[in-house]
Amino acid sequence: MSIVDKIRILESVVKTPSYVVLGVTHGRLVYLSTVEGAADLWSLDLSTGSKTRLTSGGISGAARPSEKTRLVVYTRDVSKGRELHKLFTVDVSGGEEKILIEAPPMRIFGIAFDGERIAYTAATERELALYLADLKGVCEKVYSFESLAIATDVNEKYVVGYGALKKNPKSMEIFVYSLAENSIKIYSPREGSVNKAPRLYETKVLFETNAFGENKLVVYDIEEKTLEKPEFAYRDYEKYHPVEHASYDWTEDGRIWAVGKKNGRTKFFLDGKEIPLPEGFISSAAIHRDKLYATHSSLVKPPKVLEVDLTTGETRVIIDNKLPREIEEKLGEVKFIKYKSFDGLEIPAFVVKSKGAPVPGPTVVYVHGGPWSEVADSWRTMIASLVACGYHIVAPNFRGSTGYGEYFRLLDIGDPGGGDLQDIIYARKWAVENGLASKIAVMGYSYGGYMTFLATTKYPELWDCGVAGAGITDWEELYELSDALFKQFVNILFAGRKDLWKERSPVSYVDNAKTPICVIHPQNDSRTPLRPVLKYLQRLLENRVSFEAHVIPDIGHAINRLEDMLKILLPAILFLEKHMRR
Amino acid sequence: MSIVDKIRILESVVKTPSYVVLGVTHGRLVYLSTVEGAADLWSLDLSTGSKTRLTSGGISGAARPSEKTRLVVYTRDVSKGRELHKLFTVDVSGGEEKILIEAPPMRIFGIAFDGERIAYTAATERELALYLADLKGVCEKVYSFESLAIATDVNEKYVVGYGALKKNPKSMEIFVYSLAENSIKIYSPREGSVNKAPRLYETKVLFETNAFGENKLVVYDIEEKTLEKPEFAYRDYEKYHPVEHASYDWTEDGRIWAVGKKNGRTKFFLDGKEIPLPEGFISSAAIHRDKLYATHSSLVKPPKVLEVDLTTGETRVIIDNKLPREIEEKLGEVKFIKYKSFDGLEIPAFVVKSKGAPVPGPTVVYVHGGPWSEVADSWRTMIASLVACGYHIVAPNFRGSTGYGEYFRLLDIGDPGGGDLQDIIYARKWAVENGLASKIAVMGYSYGGYMTFLATTKYPELWDCGVAGAGITDWEELYELSDALFKQFVNILFAGRKDLWKERSPVSYVDNAKTPICVIHPQNDSRTPLRPVLKYLQRLLENRVSFEAHVIPDIGHAINRLEDMLKILLPAILFLEKHMRR
Repeated sequence: MSIVDKIRILESVVKTPSYVVLGVTHGRLVYLSTVEGAADLWSLDLSTGSKTRLTSGGISGAARPSEKTRLVVYTRDVSKGRELHKLFTVDVSGGEEKILIEAPPMRIFGIAFDGERIAYTAATERELALYLADLKGVCEKVYSFESLAIATDVNEKYVVGYGALKKNPKSMEIFVYSLAENSIKIYSPREGSVNKAPRLYETKVLFETNAFGENKLVVYDIEEKTLEKPEFAYRDYEKYHPVEHASYDWTEDGRIWAVGKKNGRTKFFLDGKEIPLPEGFISSAAIHRDKLYATHSSLVKPPKVLEVDLTTGETRVIIDNKLPREIEEKLGEVKFIKYKSFDGLEIPAFVVKSKGAPVPGPTVVYVHGGPWSEVADSWRTMIASLVACGYHIVAPNFRGSTGYGEYFRLLDIGDPGGGDLQDIIYARKWAVENGLASKIAVMGYSYGGYMTFLATTKYPELWDCGVAGAGITDWEELYELSDALFKQFVNILFAGRKDLWKERSPVSYVDNAKTPICVIHPQNDSRTPLRPVLKYLQRLLENRVSFEAHVIPDIGHAINRLEDMLKILLPAILFLEKHMRR
Repeated sequence: MSIVDKIRILESVVKTPSYVVLGVTHGRLVYLSTVEGAADLWSLDLSTGSKTRLTSGGISGAARPSEKTRLVVYTRDVSKGRELHKLFTVDVSGGEEKILIEAPPMRIFGIAFDGERIAYTAATERELALYLADLKGVCEKVYSFESLAIATDVNEKYVVGYGALKKNPKSMEIFVYSLAENSIKIYSPREGSVNKAPRLYETKVLFETNAFGENKLVVYDIEEKTLEKPEFAYRDYEKYHPVEHASYDWTEDGRIWAVGKKNGRTKFFLDGKEIPLPEGFISSAAIHRDKLYATHSSLVKPPKVLEVDLTTGETRVIIDNKLPREIEEKLGEVKFIKYKSFDGLEIPAFVVKSKGAPVPGPTVVYVHGGPWSEVADSWRTMIASLVACGYHIVAPNFRGSTGYGEYFRLLDIGDPGGGDLQDIIYARKWAVENGLASKIAVMGYSYGGYMTFLATTKYPELWDCGVAGAGITDWEELYELSDALFKQFVNILFAGRKDLWKERSPVSYVDNAKTPICVIHPQNDSRTPLRPVLKYLQRLLENRVSFEAHVIPDIGHAINRLEDMLKILLPAILFLEKHMRR
C-alpha cells in the first residue's frame, strides 16, 4: 500500500517550474516562473546571468515590459482566488512592490502597457469596461462594453483589443480606441469573421483573421484605413503555411515575428524567416535588438528559456529545466493522431504512452479546459504527472479546440456538451480499439471537469472512474453566480441558447450516475463556482454513487502555486491508483 | 515544500497494526489485526506459532470463540460503511468464510456466542431487537426493545445484556432473557444506578455497577436472586482499588479476572491477584487454562500480544510490534495531568510531547469521540501520527469521558456541547499557560469532530485552525437521518431535551465561524451523516470562511482499513502543516 513512491514522483513533476518570457528592459529579461513555488515575476540580468525575484506570493498576470521605464506592471489576485485583482508595479531590478491604483479590485483580464500608459479591460459583477491608467496611479474608465472585449495593446495614440463586439457569438472584431478622440471604432475585414489579438506599431495593427478563409496575419492601418497582407523579406513562413499563430508581434524596427502553429507544434519566424528551434512548442517569445528569447517545451520536456542570436543563429539555454532521471524514464513517447468522431469529423489528439505502465494499461482520456484551448506538444503539469505515475494519456482536441482553424474552433458555439462530448467518447473508443487502454478514466479541469461530469452521467458504463476538477454541474446556477465577464462567456458559448442550459447540465443526468468519481474543486472559484458542485454531491450521496470530494481552500480557478497544484493532483492520483489498478 | 517526508512518517505510523485478543479454541489464539491492511480475524497456532488469516477485506466485530466449536462468529459490513452487517462464520484454522444467516443486513452492535447459540442485538431504521441464532443459520427475533440495549453474553439458559432499559438517561440496567421462558427480566441493584456489560457463568452474572457509590464488580445469581461482592483469593485487586474496569470475565473454572483501570492505565488481576505487566494499557485479554493472552500498549508503544504463564509468572511477547527508529525517536514523553475547568471540576488529560517540535511548539487539542470513551495511555493511531509528525498533544478526558467513574461520565447527559466544550477550552488554556503551545489547533473525530465544529464557531478566536473528522453540525438533521440505535443514543445524550438540539448545534453559530477548518467526512457515515455537513460547507462558503473538505468514498463511521485511516489523516496533516508552522 505504499503511496509514498507515487507521491514522490508526483511532487517531483509538480515542482518542475514553468517559464513565461515577457520581454526585456534595462538589460534584464523579465519572465514569470513558479521556480520558488508561486508564479512570480523574475528578472535575469543579461550581462551577469543573475536572477532576481521581483514579486512574492504569486501574481496573476503581467504586461510586456517597455524600455521606456524600469517599472514592470502586473496584476495580483487580492481575493483568495476569487480573481479580483489590483494593479501593481515593481522595479525591474527588484525592490518594493507597489499598488498602482487604489480602487476596489476587479477581474482584470486584458492588460497592455507602453511604458507610460496602462490599458486594461476589467469586469465587475455588472460591468465590463476599458480603463486607462498612468504610472502615477491616475486611472479612468474610458469605455463600457456590452459584450466580451479584451485589451491587447496601447501606444500614445490608441488602445486596441478584440471581442465579440457585434454580439455575434461566432465572430470577433477588433476595437480601436482613440485617445485623442475618446471614442471606440469597431473594425472587421468582413462581417462575421473572427479577428484576434491586435498588436500596435504606430498607426498599424497586426492581427489574426479568418476573413479570407484560413487564419492569416493581416495589417490594418488605422489612419489610412487600409488592410494588407504583411510583406516578409523571407519565404519560410509562407512555405510552412501555419494553421494558426501561437503569438506574434512587431519588432522595435517594425518587422513582424510570428510563432506559427500546426498540429500542436510551432515554428518561429522573423520577417518570414524560420529561426530553427527544437521540435515542440514555443509558448512565449520576445525579441530584443538582435536576440530572441523564447520558452520551449514539449509534452515530455519541461520549459526552458532559450536565447537565440539572430545574427549568428546560435542558440543557448539560458534557463535550463531538468527532470530527475526517475521521472524522465517514465515519460514515454508522444504521438499526434487523428481519429474519426461520430459524424466523420477528424479529431486531432495527442497520445502519450507511459513507460511506467504496460500496454494495454490504465489510460486517462484527458479533457482540456477552455473550451477554446488545446493540448499541444507543450508541457502540461497535469499530463506529465499522470504519465509519470503510470497512466497512458489520450488528450483529444475535441471540436471547439484551438489549433486547427476557426472553422473547427467555432463548432462548439451553440453546442457545448454536444458534439464535443461525442469526441471525448470517441477518444475513449480509439484508446480501447487501438489496444492502449486496459482500464479507462475520464479526467479534466474546468471545461474538462464539466466534460467529466457529463461523460460520467450520460455514459456511465463507459468509464472505470472519473476525476472532475473545477467542473461545471449546472449552467443555470453558474450563470447566476457569474460576473459580467463570465455571463458573456456563457452567452457566446451557448450562442444565447438558454433553452440548452438544462439539457447540457450534468445535474440533469445525475440520477444516471454510477461511475466512481473524484471531485476536486477550488473553494473560491469564481468561474466555475463551488455552490452548484456541493449540491451535485448531495445528489450523488442520495443516489449512493461512490464519490470522493476535495475542496481546496483559499484558491480560485487559476492555479498559480505549485502547492495548490499538488493539492489538486494528490487526491486525483490516489483515487486513480485505487480504481485503475485493481 | 517537500511533503513526502511527512507522508512517509504518517504512512509508517498508520501501518502499525492493531491487535485485539478474542480467545482460544482448538489450540489457536483468535485475534483481530490490521496487519495486512484491514481489520481481519487471525488465528495463531499456539504449538507452532504459525499465523493464519481467517477473513479478508475487513470485518466489523467478532464474538469470543468457544472451545465447543471450531467456528468463529463475526460480523461484516456489507453496505460500504453504512454499518449494515451480516453474520459470518469461519473455521479457526482457516477456510471458506460463510454467511450464517440469509436475511437483510442490520446494524449489529452486541454479539455473544457460547459455541452453540449466537445472541445479538441489532437495529433497523425503526426497531432495536434481540435475536437468537444457531450455527445452522436458524435465527429468530426474540425481543424488541424500546430503548438502547446491548447483548453481552449467552449460555444454554440465558442471554444477558444491559442498556437504558428504564428510559432513564442516567441509568443502565441489566437484562436477563430466559431461553426457557422466552421472557426478559430487567435487573438493577438500585433504581437509577448504572450497570454494565454482564458476563455469565452458569446462573451467575458478573457486572460493573455504581449502585453502591464507586464502580464495583458484583455477582448476581439469576435463580437465587442474590447480589454479592465477588470473593477473591488474593488482596491485590482490593489494594489497587480500581476506578473502573476495562474488561472482566469468568475463567473456565469460575474464577474472576478483571482489568482494573485508574488514570488511564490498567492492572490485570486474576482472582484478586495482580499479574505484573508493563505500564500502559491492557485493551483486550483472554484466559485459557493456565495462560493469559493480552494486548498491551501505551500512547507511544504500539500494541503487542503477550502470553503470561499464570503458574510461573513468565511473560513473553508472542506478537511483537516495533516502530521504525525514525518514528520511535519522535514519540516523546507521556504525562498524565489534571487541570481545573471553568467550574473548578478537575479534568484529567494526557499530554504527549513530540520530539519533532520545539517547546513551545505547534499543539493539537485532541478531542476523543464517544463521548463515553477516553484517551488512555493506550495506542491511538491518530495521536501517534500527530506526535510523529511534530505536534504536541493535549488530550482532555472532558466531563462525560469514561475512566473516572460514573459521576464524571454522567456529567454530559443532558448537556452535550455545554460543560464538555468548556473543558476543551480549558485544555487549550492549560496548553498555552503551561508554555506547551505556540500555535494551537482543535481536532477530533466523531464526537471530537462535533466539538471541533462547536469550538471553532463559538470560540473562533481561540484556535489557529481546526480539523473536524466525521463530525456533527446539526443534531436535528442527524436525528432525522438516524436509525433506531442512534435515535436512542441522541435521546440519552440529551436526556430527551430536544429543545437543546438547536442551541448545541454548530450550524446555529456558523455565522461566527472564521477559524480555518479542515472537514474530513466518510461518504457513507450512518452515525454522523454527511448530508448536514455538506450543508454546513455551503454556509462556510457563503460566509467566506477558509475551509477545505475531503469526503472519503465508500466508507462509514468506523475505520477498519489502514488505507482509509491514511485517507483521513493525510489531508489533516497537510492542513496542519500549512496552518501551524508558518
